[in-house]
Amino acid sequence: MTVAAERALASTLARIEPVDAAAGEEAQRLLDGKTKPRGSLGQLETLVCRIASIRRTATIGPLRPALVVAAGDHGVAVEDVSAYPQQVTRQMLENFAAGGAAVNVLSNEMGARLVVVDAGVVEPVEHESVRSLRLGAGTANLAVGPAMTRWQALSGLAKGIELAEELAGDGFGLLALGDMGIANTTAAAALAAALLPAEPEAVCGRGTGIDDAGLGRKVAVVRRALARHGARRDDVVGTLADLGGFEIAVLAGVCLGAAAARVPILLDGFVTGTAALVAARLSAASAEHMIAAHRSPEPGHALVLAELGLRPLLDLGLRLGEGSGAALALPLVQSALVLLAEMSTFEAAGVTDAGV
Amino acid sequence: MTVAAERALASTLARIEPVDAAAGEEAQRLLDGKTKPRGSLGQLETLVCRIASIRRTATIGPLRPALVVAAGDHGVAVEDVSAYPQQVTRQMLENFAAGGAAVNVLSNEMGARLVVVDAGVVEPVEHESVRSLRLGAGTANLAVGPAMTRWQALSGLAKGIELAEELAGDGFGLLALGDMGIANTTAAAALAAALLPAEPEAVCGRGTGIDDAGLGRKVAVVRRALARHGARRDDVVGTLADLGGFEIAVLAGVCLGAAAARVPILLDGFVTGTAALVAARLSAASAEHMIAAHRSPEPGHALVLAELGLRPLLDLGLRLGEGSGAALALPLVQSALVLLAEMSTFEAAGVTDAGV
Repeated sequence: MTVAAERALASTLARIEPVDAAAGEEAQRLLDGKTKPRGSLGQLETLVCRIASIRRTATIGPLRPALVVAAGDHGVAVEDVSAYPQQVTRQMLENFAAGGAAVNVLSNEMGARLVVVDAGVVEPVEHESVRSLRLGAGTANLAVGPAMTRWQALSGLAKGIELAEELAGDGFGLLALGDMGIANTTAAAALAAALLPAEPEAVCGRGTGIDDAGLGRKVAVVRRALARHGARRDDVVGTLADLGGFEIAVLAGVCLGAAAARVPILLDGFVTGTAALVAARLSAASAEHMIAAHRSPEPGHALVLAELGLRPLLDLGLRLGEGSGAALALPLVQSALVLLAEMSTFEAAGVTDAGV
Repeated sequence: MTVAAERALASTLARIEPVDAAAGEEAQRLLDGKTKPRGSLGQLETLVCRIASIRRTATIGPLRPALVVAAGDHGVAVEDVSAYPQQVTRQMLENFAAGGAAVNVLSNEMGARLVVVDAGVVEPVEHESVRSLRLGAGTANLAVGPAMTRWQALSGLAKGIELAEELAGDGFGLLALGDMGIANTTAAAALAAALLPAEPEAVCGRGTGIDDAGLGRKVAVVRRALARHGARRDDVVGTLADLGGFEIAVLAGVCLGAAAARVPILLDGFVTGTAALVAARLSAASAEHMIAAHRSPEPGHALVLAELGLRPLLDLGLRLGEGSGAALALPLVQSALVLLAEMSTFEAAGVTDAGV
């Protein structure tokens, strides 16, 4: 099984290619013919060109979006690093299944297919709308030992790859990512600190709302985890196993599978960003397939986005996770693509082109 | 006629009331019961509360939006302050009528009713989808004399008020604003400089894309206009007449009419922001009814937003005008309201509320 997952990973990494800059340039040329001053749609123009380069064609309209929200539990929750008790992960998974969470409302509003994944909560949720890609009943406490085995990490990557391939095969042209997991910003902080690298203080934030004492515990936990992690730093899968989370492993796999399928990846906040960083460390070209939906107030998020070379579309102080920021940025992505497809040209509309 | 317009203005100003802070607090209380950490939807929560306070009720769902795009020509265009020739105002009005401009694509995408207004281009556009609220065949050159008469300014305000009342009466619960007019950022800069007040250099930007020499001419024109304007500074309608534009007068009227009807106003960029500043100087309470869609790169825009006490939702380097930024922010507004209406509460979903 480890061998099969290792092969799936290696084969996917081999298929991820750099994006096509020429398609992006062609998209810019098309935008420059539209009835507007050149560049006046600002960051939306950059976005259109990026998507064209990812899709390897400037002939693009709106993309059929799916939003993958992966949930997992974290052994490190015993260190009292979250404002919420661990059972809230499962309760929220049930809320997703029942349709009452923010991400349900938003994915419905944006016309995105919501794919809820149980990557390994402590107690499974049996529901037709929850996809089981379980790697275990929650990770172990990363403060005292590896969060998961190497096999689990590889298996999570492989399951994420497979899910992305399936969604791409079903015609989804854009994959947005979301996460749920009590204490998962602690795992993301440890992982980001190891991969960037960065000091614990620079990547630890208040998550769902811990107080000063909780933040102090979080920083201390990340420091202990990094000290323990030590020598494995050149092994990305080993780092993921040591410090990551089940949902993070699956989401990193989704990034890789999407990149291999030339499907743009719309990131959410700090946790999905850290999953993306894992993917980028495994394949630098995968990062060229990513779009940052928003910047969260988690201090580590800005560092991760900078490392990935991404400028976020939104900066609204969102710190909910669940893919809520990704869903909120979707209309910007779709609008930018519709503008490319539907706006008149100077020539067709008989508007004088000042060439600026 | 001047007397009738003055009466309409006075009656509208008398009807504009401060918003209801209690309704906003009730909306926050409702949001705090939803299955998410308190405040985790960031600026969207502030937005929901603001709209509740404007509508004077926390019982609000998505609002039926209309986007009013007003066009006018500017005599100051003879000073060579725009990258585009004056006839482009009319050409773009025809493009709006034909459905090929960015704002057509975006208002269609967002499900907003587009209301295109000819507030006074040099040569009228006869088209069923263009509403004629003409104040003249373009303004006079504000660098050498008043842009319009006091009667025209009052008439523009009255026409805008009437349009907003009509749209509110037709059930539109949110009015977004857009503008079109070659050289209108020069008029907006002069008007903003007089009303804030601010130095010409602080409010003049590159508009659709003028070069350094053009920017120098623009600053010089604004400086001359302000010197000429001199003593009329305590008379807002007089300042509007002296330095404004026909579309700016109508848009300022729309702000006042919307505020009187308790309808939220979604601003676009610098020109609509300056129209909003005119409205705010006539009625401070009208500004409480405004929402800033985005921040444009025009340097005066940030000053105007700060003066209005508004924090923009988007910051994407948009500098197209036409209401494009307002249209792009619409899904954020609607999503925020749908989240309030549709998300489950902790109690209903059986999710543990940590109270943070």
